[in-house]
Amino acid sequence: MAQPIDFYFDFTSPYGYLASTRIEEVASRHGRSVNWHPIVLGFVFKVTGSVPLVSIPLKGEYATMDIERSARQHNIPYRLPDNFPVGTVAAARTCLWLKSADFGNDPETMASMVHALYRAYFVDNIDISDTANVIAVAAAQGIDTDTLSSALENTEVKGLLKTAVDAAVEKGIFGSPFILVDGEPFWGHDRLKDVEQWLETGGF
Amino acid sequence: MAQPIDFYFDFTSPYGYLASTRIEEVASRHGRSVNWHPIVLGFVFKVTGSVPLVSIPLKGEYATMDIERSARQHNIPYRLPDNFPVGTVAAARTCLWLKSADFGNDPETMASMVHALYRAYFVDNIDISDTANVIAVAAAQGIDTDTLSSALENTEVKGLLKTAVDAAVEKGIFGSPFILVDGEPFWGHDRLKDVEQWLETGGF
Repeated sequence: MAQPIDFYFDFTSPYGYLASTRIEEVASRHGRSVNWHPIVLGFVFKVTGSVPLVSIPLKGEYATMDIERSARQHNIPYRLPDNFPVGTVAAARTCLWLKSADFGNDPETMASMVHALYRAYFVDNIDISDTANVIAVAAAQGIDTDTLSSALENTEVKGLLKTAVDAAVEKGIFGSPFILVDGEPFWGHDRLKDVEQWLETGGF
Repeated sequence: MAQPIDFYFDFTSPYGYLASTRIEEVASRHGRSVNWHPIVLGFVFKVTGSVPLVSIPLKGEYATMDIERSARQHNIPYRLPDNFPVGTVAAARTCLWLKSADFGNDPETMASMVHALYRAYFVDNIDISDTANVIAVAAAQGIDTDTLSSALENTEVKGLLKTAVDAAVEKGIFGSPFILVDGEPFWGHDRLKDVEQWLETGGF
């Protein structure tokens, strides 16, 4: 089987959310699976000197409009959360912990947790910067809350996020969503058509 | 006839160049013409606090690669100019002067000048920050060089660019290319497919 598509994202990224609802369909049409890579862009922005998109004059207003328009264009449920953007350390750590067989988890459970957290934030307006809310979302996915609560305080689990962010920066990843197809990088929800063309044609 | 498509661009913008080679075909398929709006992003960036794309760590390296890849994808001749990015005041003023019937010019001549300047810079590696080179490109388009040389020193012509940039910022334009379809904004070469869909469907 061909390599999975690497999908890097931040849980507070609306374009990451939009793409997360579409990437598995794109991948499966081409016999691929998705390898989910949660990162925290705040840490990446220290390298690139960037600031959150929506805080930039003019560009932020355009982005706010464009995100809603893109959701309509692709029939994706979306609302701008009341608290936005937010810190996503707890959400990212939860997913990285789920992904790690080292902690006795089944990595297959991660994809559904990614969707559940994104949906909680961008559909149900649940503030996922609050660890208690992340744990509640996990509980609804059948994850044991005591085990997760302990894991989020575990130094090794904390280390998973630092390692993931460092590895992403090392690969040149600076935004969300950021997609690698056999190492070929595509940045942005609006590049899914290019990802499709690349998968179909083998490159351009 | 339907309103022209407004196409805002900076002559040092590679994505602006790529889109400039495709926008007229997109427009004409839908019975539209193109209204060319040269701006100078350096002035706009003072409002948005932005910096040139290619100077941003990681993002700049991605963009350099992505521009070349996008040119290949759409079979557009392209090379990164030796001097890049450059100031585009003389190029923009030349086009705004050509566009202005106030100076006795035929606005129709502007489109071919836009293409000639972009081609000079991104195909023939001619440094269009040098006014003499802009005048040479104009001469090859049949424009009288003495008249143009005088025009570029004319206070009213200089005022055209300031007015154009202010008007662009007023409309929320912060990048290149930036396209308005009946006022609906689309930022980026990678949004031409969305422009097409908007023109076909009347909105989403």
